[in-house]
Amino acid sequence: MPDAPGSTLLYAQSGGVTAVINASALGVIEAARRHGRPVLAARNGILGVLGEDLLSLDGLGAEDLAALGRSPGGAFGSCRFDLDPPASNPAQARRVVDVLRAHGVGVFLYNGGNGSMRTVLDVAEAARLAGYPLQCLGIPKTVDNDLEGTDCSPGYGSSARFLATAMREAGMDVASMVGSRGRLFIMEVMGRNAGWLAAATGLARRQDDDPPHIILVPERPFDEAAFSARVEHWVGRLGYCAVAVAEGLRCPDGRLLAEQERDTLGHIQLGGVGAILAHRLHRRFGYKAHVAVPDYLQRSPGHWVSGTDWAQARAVGAAAVDLAVSGADKVMTTVVRESDAPYRWRVGSVALAAVADLERRLPLEFLDPEGGGLSEAGRRYLAPLVAGKYTVPCPDGLPDYPVLRLPDVAKRLPAYGGDEQP
Amino acid sequence: MPDAPGSTLLYAQSGGVTAVINASALGVIEAARRHGRPVLAARNGILGVLGEDLLSLDGLGAEDLAALGRSPGGAFGSCRFDLDPPASNPAQARRVVDVLRAHGVGVFLYNGGNGSMRTVLDVAEAARLAGYPLQCLGIPKTVDNDLEGTDCSPGYGSSARFLATAMREAGMDVASMVGSRGRLFIMEVMGRNAGWLAAATGLARRQDDDPPHIILVPERPFDEAAFSARVEHWVGRLGYCAVAVAEGLRCPDGRLLAEQERDTLGHIQLGGVGAILAHRLHRRFGYKAHVAVPDYLQRSPGHWVSGTDWAQARAVGAAAVDLAVSGADKVMTTVVRESDAPYRWRVGSVALAAVADLERRLPLEFLDPEGGGLSEAGRRYLAPLVAGKYTVPCPDGLPDYPVLRLPDVAKRLPAYGGDEQP
Repeated sequence: MPDAPGSTLLYAQSGGVTAVINASALGVIEAARRHGRPVLAARNGILGVLGEDLLSLDGLGAEDLAALGRSPGGAFGSCRFDLDPPASNPAQARRVVDVLRAHGVGVFLYNGGNGSMRTVLDVAEAARLAGYPLQCLGIPKTVDNDLEGTDCSPGYGSSARFLATAMREAGMDVASMVGSRGRLFIMEVMGRNAGWLAAATGLARRQDDDPPHIILVPERPFDEAAFSARVEHWVGRLGYCAVAVAEGLRCPDGRLLAEQERDTLGHIQLGGVGAILAHRLHRRFGYKAHVAVPDYLQRSPGHWVSGTDWAQARAVGAAAVDLAVSGADKVMTTVVRESDAPYRWRVGSVALAAVADLERRLPLEFLDPEGGGLSEAGRRYLAPLVAGKYTVPCPDGLPDYPVLRLPDVAKRLPAYGGDEQP
Repeated sequence: MPDAPGSTLLYAQSGGVTAVINASALGVIEAARRHGRPVLAARNGILGVLGEDLLSLDGLGAEDLAALGRSPGGAFGSCRFDLDPPASNPAQARRVVDVLRAHGVGVFLYNGGNGSMRTVLDVAEAARLAGYPLQCLGIPKTVDNDLEGTDCSPGYGSSARFLATAMREAGMDVASMVGSRGRLFIMEVMGRNAGWLAAATGLARRQDDDPPHIILVPERPFDEAAFSARVEHWVGRLGYCAVAVAEGLRCPDGRLLAEQERDTLGHIQLGGVGAILAHRLHRRFGYKAHVAVPDYLQRSPGHWVSGTDWAQARAVGAAAVDLAVSGADKVMTTVVRESDAPYRWRVGSVALAAVADLERRLPLEFLDPEGGGLSEAGRRYLAPLVAGKYTVPCPDGLPDYPVLRLPDVAKRLPAYGGDEQP
């Protein structure tokens, strides 16, 4: 006899977290309550499903929900773990279904990036193979903004706001120091394959001489001669030059610049691409260089969230529940842009199969031809994503992110030993 | 015939800038206007005096002043340039006095750190040697908080707020990622000789397990064995460990850790102390490490200024003018703490001779005995410095820092060729 569809929703977080992924969790919980549907969370993404490590969200009151919605990081824990294709690991696939069945889960909601959307499809396939009725939906998030099928990815706008603000402010700092040696400020930002975050720093620029003066992205192979010439130009003009570089900057031969340097120097590389550029320019021109590497600071700026980003993160979470209730399956919710100025957007959806595993690159036409700043098209796209009102309570000057103590859901199955934690 | 005392005030900024040094400029201008005294600024600190590179502040309206007061960086430009002792370079000393005399300057106000306070004394000595009536006052600023004679240095509180917020937020990010390898987050902060900024990250911690788990400061020689053991302890307990390290961390032999590494590996060092620690721990334990280097971001967080810090920066600027009008000379304004909780402070002053060139170190009793966090005394000292309400207008999501166009004051003297710009 086939199972009756479960009424419970299960939500989990996957991949690198963002400043607003918990706003999506909030949206899910609010919508589930509105529909009168029970909702659970899995701890650490799909690993929590395999381990039957589930959390009850029933006890969350209004204050808890507000705290959840403004907290950076992943409140339920995240993971970087891919399921095996169900056909190649039937035991794992069965385990996923067993856990969902044991807790009456009829809707699986997975909040992640392009790799995580593959996991959603794998869970759907596992359920299909087992004849278990399950709706599987994806909720987008990534600071990298590299998800296909959505105008932007929740998480990106806040990181973009943080980095653009940082470039504007650090640029004013660099500009105010005088010296006969040229000064160089390099900010190395995230982006292994895509230059979205590097491009976002271009929003700092309002007038021609404002930082950043050069934006280096993985999509455009690094031309060291042209780069050096342009740095020299800016130092000659202003006494300093501010550069944003994506960690994944590549040489014309396709290797990462950081790899090339390691091969050349024949020793262990301690710095990233920012340090390498600073070192080369110092050696060549004698410039005094400062390198900032915001690292996780750009991924977790809860204090500087974009209001637009927050609203979109919450909306794509809520919409996933609404869509599930209306019967949707194997889709990811998306942000659909309706107009640039005034900025208008709505939530849509796209088939998971059309977005899983794909990476959306930065269109080079978003940069000006020399790569020094944003083009008009780039600015039109980016500007609304960092806007919108948002404030976080700071009773003692620091953001107040209370830790939620969520009760575990009692296990109903024997332990599962089939997968090592990564 | 001796000169009559000039009525004009001259204000300039020196050394590394801060997020609130312009609030001190604002305080100076407001107070000067209140007293009906003309006020000029020199561009790039004492270099602007030597070059007779002066700016008129007369045209600044209320909106300009508000914009000035909230802008990070040094609005008039700063410098790292020390005058020669007047007795050893009489031509330079005469030039300083000639410029001040030519513009009717009777009060010299210099906004800087401990080295800059030596410059104020040198200007005073130059005036004395020339028989020129001049009052010389210092206005404190430094993110390093290493000025003697003041309870805290304006600029520090905002950087402390930024770094404590960053540690709390990035810590939540690190905590939410699961993995079988330990995870390490290291934030390398400024502080060549003093651990004030590293210690400030300790404010992020509210519960025992919260980041940061380890704070490394220059005042305590680095004990690698103890450090590794404590990292291992935290990774064992939580799966991760968050560390704040001051750039100036030193080995027991007094050398910088970064120097020791360079000597050991025999090649050019591309990373700083954070990268070195990450590399060593990775080699030893296999931990996955992330290193953040906020660099200038921590010095210029105009979007995240501490309300207390801003108010104090403005007050020490205004008080310098008030003191000058009442006849004071060769003093620096200070922040005097009257009580911890509720936090109460007032402005005081101290003789420049008692603070110039001195560095105030972090008292080790501000850290707990193992250096993992703040002691009660440390928390009592630090907590109020990051508090207080402050907001910056963000019409398009990014902080609005209009550039002030200040007219040059017409030169009255021939050019000076006596000093090369550094």
